[in-house]
Amino acid sequence: MNRVKELFGIKYPIIQGGMLWCSGWRLASAVSNNGGLGLIGSASMYPEVLDEHIRKCKAATDMPFGVNIALLYPQIQEHINTILKHKLKIVFTSAGNPKKYTSIFKENGIKVVHVVPNLRFAQKAFEAGVDAIVVEGFEAGGHNGKDEMTTISLIPIVKKAIDIPIIAAGGIASGEAILAAFALGAEGVQIGSRFAVSNESSAHENFKNAIVQAAENDTMLTLKELAPVRLLKNPFYDKIFGAYEKGVTVEELKSLLGRGRAKKGIFEGDLIEGELEIGQVSAQIEDVKSVKAIMEDLITQYQDVKNNISNFDF
Amino acid sequence: MNRVKELFGIKYPIIQGGMLWCSGWRLASAVSNNGGLGLIGSASMYPEVLDEHIRKCKAATDMPFGVNIALLYPQIQEHINTILKHKLKIVFTSAGNPKKYTSIFKENGIKVVHVVPNLRFAQKAFEAGVDAIVVEGFEAGGHNGKDEMTTISLIPIVKKAIDIPIIAAGGIASGEAILAAFALGAEGVQIGSRFAVSNESSAHENFKNAIVQAAENDTMLTLKELAPVRLLKNPFYDKIFGAYEKGVTVEELKSLLGRGRAKKGIFEGDLIEGELEIGQVSAQIEDVKSVKAIMEDLITQYQDVKNNISNFDF
Repeated sequence: MNRVKELFGIKYPIIQGGMLWCSGWRLASAVSNNGGLGLIGSASMYPEVLDEHIRKCKAATDMPFGVNIALLYPQIQEHINTILKHKLKIVFTSAGNPKKYTSIFKENGIKVVHVVPNLRFAQKAFEAGVDAIVVEGFEAGGHNGKDEMTTISLIPIVKKAIDIPIIAAGGIASGEAILAAFALGAEGVQIGSRFAVSNESSAHENFKNAIVQAAENDTMLTLKELAPVRLLKNPFYDKIFGAYEKGVTVEELKSLLGRGRAKKGIFEGDLIEGELEIGQVSAQIEDVKSVKAIMEDLITQYQDVKNNISNFDF
Repeated sequence: MNRVKELFGIKYPIIQGGMLWCSGWRLASAVSNNGGLGLIGSASMYPEVLDEHIRKCKAATDMPFGVNIALLYPQIQEHINTILKHKLKIVFTSAGNPKKYTSIFKENGIKVVHVVPNLRFAQKAFEAGVDAIVVEGFEAGGHNGKDEMTTISLIPIVKKAIDIPIIAAGGIASGEAILAAFALGAEGVQIGSRFAVSNESSAHENFKNAIVQAAENDTMLTLKELAPVRLLKNPFYDKIFGAYEKGVTVEELKSLLGRGRAKKGIFEGDLIEGELEIGQVSAQIEDVKSVKAIMEDLITQYQDVKNNISNFDF
């Protein structure tokens, strides 16, 4: 029995991370149609846009899918109303305190999963009554914790402390890494970067190609004083780095960041001025391909490495 | 066939990392006597001290053991002479360029393994002719690379690029993490922190107890401008952090660090002024125990999780 599969009613315990500017209805429905759980990333959507994506996702798949909500989103009540109106059954929450909203979702028969970067927040999510947690390591792309605990260091301590289904995130873009996550105690995985570079991702072609070109050490977790985020190094990242080198105030960082950087980078493909959110696994991603092909790769790699491990000469 | 076991002639592909002020003859021989590969950490030893430890280690075990040498060690030629004099067969090198010394060891029938924090250095080590590489992630304790690639992100890219036996390091303190490392492509593991907190480790009792108390996020990789090192947070770490906050030059950092900080912290047990080198897995270590008990735990945990994985509901 796998509690993550059972919770969502899915074939494989593979969740596609809800990612701003990447995961609209097209990506989410493709993942769900291929046996995983697709998530619409609502953080980059106006309320009416989320409504449209949910409608289109429902039309594109009969399989379960969900929505990721950033709890600091300014119009969060409108997003919640949209989710309730559509009678969705799965919500992933992140970037905020789950205490207030978990009960609202649960009262409406919605399964709630909260994303955490450490044990302390995992315990808070557990106390808030969530059904499962995504435990995300330092290597993950996009918005992340300030903390630096990595997936391999963090999963075991959460597993030991709390009896709740764990979905591992950060550093996972292959069947081998899925097996590693399960060995550490996870029952599911959340995969972001690999799906961000799929045909069905709404990210700009320039962004996808930049990730394909990326090598080791090409990403950094930065802007910890605002909202920590792992970015591909580019001229905009260099500006941030330069500002830190000189000594910079939080106000100056806010002004430097401005608004709309992620849209500019990920959705509009501006590789100079945009924010390019992606994980350390960008170094492993070597092509843009369909969700179907990605899912087939993950499953084949997983089965192969599982067979190898059973014969491994320890 | 396991190339790491074969290379060293050991029963389990578990290597005890050579750690300054922790791994003298007592720890190294205990690990070797329990089926792993013990390494004497020579970086904290004067040449005559290394000579003594090798003699005592030979007397304490008939099993293979090795020496870890930091290639930036000021009296490196004397260390090399000592190793050649004793006709040792295994050397692990770290912290420096393997080009110059690998051939000297190889000409003397010594197996050489180099420790690397990234693919670029892995390729250099491969070109230098080493027999295997330790690939060490960001989460590892003590001296480390400037880079921030984590174990789960880094191992697969090295595995894909170079056909050389990989020993994974960083974040490994349990049989579950060993299996994870093998899933990612390693054929062996190097474990430091867990053995640093063994009865046989020469670290001070205060240091061991501080690690047992440590929780998540209690370590940080710092001093990147000198020699990057992951430390347990303590008043000395706070001083460094404070200096960075104010803006500090490399010269000021050197002066702040001074000399003998690691000895003071690890060997003399000064938890205020000493440097306490340890990995992120310190959060998982809950007791001081014998090497025999640690090895038994690792092997039992590995077998258990391997059996679980083969029945895992994917």
